Amino acid sequence: MQIETLGIIGLGLIGSSLARDARAEGFAARLLGADVEPKHARKALELGIVDAVLPFEAVVAEADLILLAAPVDHLLRLLPETLDKIHPNQTVIDVGSTKEPLLQAVARHPMRRRYVAAHPMAGTEKQGPEASFNGLFRNHAVILVDPEGSDTDAVALATIFFQTIGANLVELDAQTHDRTIALLSHLPHLLSYALARTIENETGNTGEKTPLAGGGLASMLRLSKSPASMWLPILLQNRSAILDALAAYERELLYFRKALEVNDSNALKELLKNHPTK
Amino acid sequence: MQIETLGIIGLGLIGSSLARDARAEGFAARLLGADVEPKHARKALELGIVDAVLPFEAVVAEADLILLAAPVDHLLRLLPETLDKIHPNQTVIDVGSTKEPLLQAVARHPMRRRYVAAHPMAGTEKQGPEASFNGLFRNHAVILVDPEGSDTDAVALATIFFQTIGANLVELDAQTHDRTIALLSHLPHLLSYALARTIENETGNTGEKTPLAGGGLASMLRLSKSPASMWLPILLQNRSAILDALAAYERELLYFRKALEVNDSNALKELLKNHPTK
Repeated sequence: MQIETLGIIGLGLIGSSLARDARAEGFAARLLGADVEPKHARKALELGIVDAVLPFEAVVAEADLILLAAPVDHLLRLLPETLDKIHPNQTVIDVGSTKEPLLQAVARHPMRRRYVAAHPMAGTEKQGPEASFNGLFRNHAVILVDPEGSDTDAVALATIFFQTIGANLVELDAQTHDRTIALLSHLPHLLSYALARTIENETGNTGEKTPLAGGGLASMLRLSKSPASMWLPILLQNRSAILDALAAYERELLYFRKALEVNDSNALKELLKNHPTK
Repeated sequence: MQIETLGIIGLGLIGSSLARDARAEGFAARLLGADVEPKHARKALELGIVDAVLPFEAVVAEADLILLAAPVDHLLRLLPETLDKIHPNQTVIDVGSTKEPLLQAVARHPMRRRYVAAHPMAGTEKQGPEASFNGLFRNHAVILVDPEGSDTDAVALATIFFQTIGANLVELDAQTHDRTIALLSHLPHLLSYALARTIENETGNTGEKTPLAGGGLASMLRLSKSPASMWLPILLQNRSAILDALAAYERELLYFRKALEVNDSNALKELLKNHPTK
């Protein structure tokens, strides 16, 4: 299938990669973009990622399907504003990493059912349209959150779109989503940021510049290079679930600490086996 | 330059990758290998990584330069045994990840000065000769530890070998090495193992099999797939420095916890900035 106009609000890594795939798959006859950062908008246009860059309101007015790919703090404002402006044959999808606050923010909106909450489990630590690429979402999960709160045709359109770009669809309720993603994504990011600080505090160098760093450290520091403007609001919005995930992690670290402190080879061997029992 | 015979004791990822580079650069006319695992030895021979597989004693008897690429617990036995058998125109290099215990073990050995302690800062989470590849050490650091304890010609040979395979040489004393590497390598591995346990405990799935896992989690879990047989003795031998590195990390985690607990956006923003001050 092909829709007439796809609108992408937010032309960063995720929004631009979604646009690239939509174009490659012929999903939309026309792609319109908007970004609060003029340099992102210019770059996306220059790279041919979208056909035109317009003000937010113009994109919302013209698009059949509107993708909101902005940081989650912006989404709290942007989603209600978008729903205020659409008519009932338009569909809105957000691709943010936290869902409970956002779903609460529009729970009573008259256009709530035109909105589908989605979370593609893919990304990199890089940012901006120049970091975008085709196939980012292929074989990755896209979680549709509380889809029973959306119109059937809106969910169907979201499903077709994400299937078209090669993703595997999964459905979760908002609370399960936020708790699961705290563990699988938000905690790993926090741990990487904390490691980056540790290395810098102890060596005076950032990890990248530490001449002795091997590939293992690079792997563990990669996520810490993610933009703080994206991750600060994620950590704040999902802080309760992240604190629980962090507590679970701290319990594991304590096992390692204790085993090392008493030089308990057997305990440490069990810990490295990587098949814990609850 | 070319030596006559290079002996590699331990044909795992590191030993086999060193052998591949030595061959590719024409560093030795003949490569002999030994491994306590018959299947590693067979595989290395089958892949043409070495010209022949012989018992440990035979490799030591015939090689001009002997590389010891075994887990660090084996090295504590293997290095003195090797030094017992060599004559003064042979050179021995180990490539283990901990140095103080090993250097102490041979401090008074009459052949101590024929031994050069080296640590190439490269590797992957995979194991065995089939995981080896050319160029693993290119542009990575190789740390020579306490080289003033070795004969000048032995250090020169080690230097030429590691330069030949494209590595950057750095010198450190044993204590500085072990403390620095606790922070840059051992701690990151421990953190990855602890995250793997957390994910499995909380989701019942290993990270790999968690269908919702994105690339970020994979990056953070990669090191946890490293062989426990290699990492258990590293953690035990360097436990004091690793406990200090872990304490530094726990302090950073505590800052994150506190900021999240009190919903302190400014503090969290500072933590994500990734430019801490001591």
